[in-house]
Amino acid sequence: MASEMAEQPRVLEALAARRGELTARVRAVLPPAPAGVVLVARGSSDNAAVYGRYVLELATGRPVALAAPSLVTRYHLHGDLEGWLAVGVSQSGRTPEIVTVLEQLGASGARTIAITNAADSPLADVAQATIDTAAGDELAVPATKTVTAQVAAFAVLGEAAAHDPARLPWTAGDWDGLPGAVADLLADPEPARRTAAAIGDAPGLVVAARGILLGAALETALKLKETTAILAEGASAADFLHGPIAVVRDGLPVLTLSSGGPAAGDLDDLAAEVRRRGGRVLTCAAHAGADLPLPASVPEGLASVGVIVRAQQLAHALALDRGIDPDAPFGLSKVTITR
Amino acid sequence: MASEMAEQPRVLEALAARRGELTARVRAVLPPAPAGVVLVARGSSDNAAVYGRYVLELATGRPVALAAPSLVTRYHLHGDLEGWLAVGVSQSGRTPEIVTVLEQLGASGARTIAITNAADSPLADVAQATIDTAAGDELAVPATKTVTAQVAAFAVLGEAAAHDPARLPWTAGDWDGLPGAVADLLADPEPARRTAAAIGDAPGLVVAARGILLGAALETALKLKETTAILAEGASAADFLHGPIAVVRDGLPVLTLSSGGPAAGDLDDLAAEVRRRGGRVLTCAAHAGADLPLPASVPEGLASVGVIVRAQQLAHALALDRGIDPDAPFGLSKVTITR
Repeated sequence: MASEMAEQPRVLEALAARRGELTARVRAVLPPAPAGVVLVARGSSDNAAVYGRYVLELATGRPVALAAPSLVTRYHLHGDLEGWLAVGVSQSGRTPEIVTVLEQLGASGARTIAITNAADSPLADVAQATIDTAAGDELAVPATKTVTAQVAAFAVLGEAAAHDPARLPWTAGDWDGLPGAVADLLADPEPARRTAAAIGDAPGLVVAARGILLGAALETALKLKETTAILAEGASAADFLHGPIAVVRDGLPVLTLSSGGPAAGDLDDLAAEVRRRGGRVLTCAAHAGADLPLPASVPEGLASVGVIVRAQQLAHALALDRGIDPDAPFGLSKVTITR
Repeated sequence: MASEMAEQPRVLEALAARRGELTARVRAVLPPAPAGVVLVARGSSDNAAVYGRYVLELATGRPVALAAPSLVTRYHLHGDLEGWLAVGVSQSGRTPEIVTVLEQLGASGARTIAITNAADSPLADVAQATIDTAAGDELAVPATKTVTAQVAAFAVLGEAAAHDPARLPWTAGDWDGLPGAVADLLADPEPARRTAAAIGDAPGLVVAARGILLGAALETALKLKETTAILAEGASAADFLHGPIAVVRDGLPVLTLSSGGPAAGDLDDLAAEVRRRGGRVLTCAAHAGADLPLPASVPEGLASVGVIVRAQQLAHALALDRGIDPDAPFGLSKVTITR
């Protein structure tokens, strides 16, 4: 896990360098004005897709749906996807259900794009165009470099889909600083160790964000569950404040993610209420004094990458604290096999 | 909470009796073949919307998106919703953010429908048509009768949207037995008391389903969180099996929901894996021997109502076991106020 985490600056730099080529490849398939966009994924890929959902909705102005695979594979729905764009996401490109659903959406009229780490895979075969993340083989069970690469791939897809680049909350120049910023984070593991120590043996944890960082919150919770068995739940700060906040008491840790975007105030409101209820607030943010500091140089639109790197560090540190092997925790296997 | 739960057979019977009127009202607004459908909701209403998502996708054959309100209220996206149907859901009709988003989607070209318990409310005012659930005032903080009424309202909306009733996994005749089946469940609180005792003082719980019952799983988890502070997470059985299953050990309770639909086998697979990992399986199902039995007479398409009634009973019993007032737990307030 640690060695694959360390490859991320190189992987991101290579993807950024291929932006022109990938954008052209995708534009050859994109509907000029899609009726809508549907994303098909599971697990970490689905968390990257939640990031993609915000980016693609900002880029196209059309709602983005996250597919319910069971509608195709269990309920045998043959929908009408004429005019739609469908994007399938799978690290291995071999998750049978994701391949089946993307293929069926294509047969129902959608233009199809794959985001996968395996350019030669069943998912790439059924798609009209592929963004291959080219992150190299991933052996550790907890996905790391392939997830940040998927996030970057969705950013590239957003650039390809946006008629006006000003619709996106970053600029072309922001890519230049991203690999270096991630390298700086990786060279600074101490904050994650301190945060893991602060979490200690807590049975549960909430990870909250709002807006573009929501996918990173879900991925942080998933990575912590997979590597440490802690009952971590990712949540929208707005949703969490109205109802689920009831679970906050007795020092329950709540990790808030914010990178100074337009929803930052919602995270401040949540933090105040968590403190009032006796919970412990931990912060992953670009401001001074954050428990898990983020680089101030990366805008919110690309900050999910840095947040996920911080989450990897935290999951790795907490696993070691709990005596768990982060490379192969809890007998999980690498390729999901739901058909 | 208990007295409002008891009103559900009457509320459902009244809604079923108004199906013809409500369907006509909705059809006057529905696009003949919607480009897509987007649902706007928060909390329990959002869980009813997850049910609605399956029903409306089966009914229309077009993908259904769950709106991210922050895109409108924080990122100021002005999208293009020409040809889309947008449905806003709020018990009170007064959640400011839901009203703002539905209004904006309408201004962007969508046809708009409100599902609310308050026919005279800001949400109804901004919608072109309203399905008023007419459940009467709800005073307890945990929403009960208004949630099952929202589920029924989505079923009615699905009937209005389906050109071919055979697309839906229930028939018109199935409504006749629903109020009586719910009355039978309410007259049988013992299974919930036994299940609450089995959960005991567990710090967490997973509630899993797949397909049409997924919204009921999310609602079961939310109701348990709100009323008992247990770290309950609702999950798709397929998602949970590949990754989050790592949290299952040391007798963690996992409640599986199934009503014999096409995804029932996925729940059996999950249960087997939970047992293998040392978790405790609890079942809410229509078969003999289930911990929380469901009526065999209600098909899966309408079974979410019965599952949610069982969840209410469980939440109520577990709150009492834990010495919590189920009517006003943890200082929660009734109307969500995010703007």
